[in-house]
Amino acid sequence: MNAVQAVIDAGGTEALKVMDRVEQRMTELASGHGRLLGQHAGETIAAGGKRLRPLLVCLCAGVPVPESEGLVRAAVAVELVHAATLVHDDVLDGAVLRRGRPTVVASGGRPVATATGDLLFSRAFAELAATESLEAVRILARATSELAAGELMQRGDAWKTEVTVERYLERCRLKTAVLFRAACELGALETNRELDSLGAFGEAIGLAFQILDDVLDVSGPPERTGKPRGADLLDGTVTLPLILARERDPKLRSIELRAITSPADAAAVCERITATGALELVKARALALVERAKALLPPLPLRQRAALELVAEGVVERYA
Amino acid sequence: MNAVQAVIDAGGTEALKVMDRVEQRMTELASGHGRLLGQHAGETIAAGGKRLRPLLVCLCAGVPVPESEGLVRAAVAVELVHAATLVHDDVLDGAVLRRGRPTVVASGGRPVATATGDLLFSRAFAELAATESLEAVRILARATSELAAGELMQRGDAWKTEVTVERYLERCRLKTAVLFRAACELGALETNRELDSLGAFGEAIGLAFQILDDVLDVSGPPERTGKPRGADLLDGTVTLPLILARERDPKLRSIELRAITSPADAAAVCERITATGALELVKARALALVERAKALLPPLPLRQRAALELVAEGVVERYA
Repeated sequence: MNAVQAVIDAGGTEALKVMDRVEQRMTELASGHGRLLGQHAGETIAAGGKRLRPLLVCLCAGVPVPESEGLVRAAVAVELVHAATLVHDDVLDGAVLRRGRPTVVASGGRPVATATGDLLFSRAFAELAATESLEAVRILARATSELAAGELMQRGDAWKTEVTVERYLERCRLKTAVLFRAACELGALETNRELDSLGAFGEAIGLAFQILDDVLDVSGPPERTGKPRGADLLDGTVTLPLILARERDPKLRSIELRAITSPADAAAVCERITATGALELVKARALALVERAKALLPPLPLRQRAALELVAEGVVERYA
Repeated sequence: MNAVQAVIDAGGTEALKVMDRVEQRMTELASGHGRLLGQHAGETIAAGGKRLRPLLVCLCAGVPVPESEGLVRAAVAVELVHAATLVHDDVLDGAVLRRGRPTVVASGGRPVATATGDLLFSRAFAELAATESLEAVRILARATSELAAGELMQRGDAWKTEVTVERYLERCRLKTAVLFRAACELGALETNRELDSLGAFGEAIGLAFQILDDVLDVSGPPERTGKPRGADLLDGTVTLPLILARERDPKLRSIELRAITSPADAAAVCERITATGALELVKARALALVERAKALLPPLPLRQRAALELVAEGVVERYA
């Protein structure tokens, strides 16, 4: 996916300019806190990723994207929180690679990675506090609280195959969609217009994003996702593909998650899930969410609407 | 130590009243975020501790302590950050007990404990964002950034016996004293007076606190500190007692920290450190810091000064 490129192609060169400042600011931050942070957070930040959340911050502020210092800081804050959660997730999963590079936990160990995540979190709030908006701090604090609550919910539900679709969706909302919502709200704060509707748009594409991420965990291929298939299964995390597949395949209903202990076991269960056709159902659900997201967009100037729609579509482009 | 009691005895009943509201607010927070957080963060919060940092917030606002909602929130925020760092530290150290109760990592596992720490962090910023002070958010964000940087510094310096006194003190400042400073600054923000001098006071007693904590790690006894002697040695953390003892005992100079692998090894090295008389030197240094802290106090109403001096002395009372 290259949502940024798509947006630029659509004429949003101002977005590129602001996004450049976001990158530059993140690089500065990574180099400004001692050798260890520079090294570890620097790697995390440089490893990049899609920068989907900062892009949402920018585009929700308007197109052309206003060149505001506060907006750059908000975009940076959201991406720093995202990076912090990735670093902590990797600690918990003992992940070795992320985006094809060694994770912080792999190169620095658990203590360094935990502290790096905490530092990225703190810097996010420091960025927002430097703007003049308490409301921005409130938005981010609410989102980070919900992210952590989502993580707790996921761990509490681990190994429970009886998780309902509703509970699964609530977990996706907490662990992923709230940060997309916060990104859109922070952008909307720039003009102080349409916070609720743009937030709802963000939440819907965040949900779609997470649901498709869960499909990718089952479908792979590893060379594309950068991680082995079935990581969720090995982790005890019950996702929508498994929930729906279990309704269609009695063998999957009787499966005991704790018995899946090797990547080969996990890959075999992934095959079985795929064979039920559940992945198509889940993808359809995600596509429907993207459509709903677009329908949730408030009346906006044409170029801004077009750019936001492109980002929404970019979320599902990973499957093209 | 019972600094709270001492302050009450000195006539600060208003402090007690506000501190009661701090406790109440923390209990509400612990119960307001789902079963898992209620359970884990609830235990962490209920386990209590000395509540030294919230007390500093209150007393730096004035005596009688003003009954302000913002002050309660600031005190809660500082204690939540403190609790978050304890929870994350316990994850890294694999600690089983804290204050005589099972740690979050012991009862919930690493993922739950990491998320619980993240949630406590986030709630701290949410508390401050609910006040009307961006400056308060800035103070806390700076402190949490430095706390994490201190943790990174400690891990980076692990196993290095050549750590200098200066570097050790800078680490203590980052990992402990900055939160004491922030507590005092947040309290001073209530009247917007003497932020710098009260902050400097807080930093000095925070340094004394950490230095004495490092003495306790060597001196024990475990039934008083609630943890085995020499935990820092087993962790590779070089503290002032070892630095000074090495100057006095050639055998300690030739010691290889990585060779200390059992609690019995660690206890033996603790004995050897104690035998050099280094602990007395370190304690004297901490006492001098407490005196310096008192000298740093700005001109204040008599009762406020008396209360803050009591807290400063309370930091070293643990050794009475």
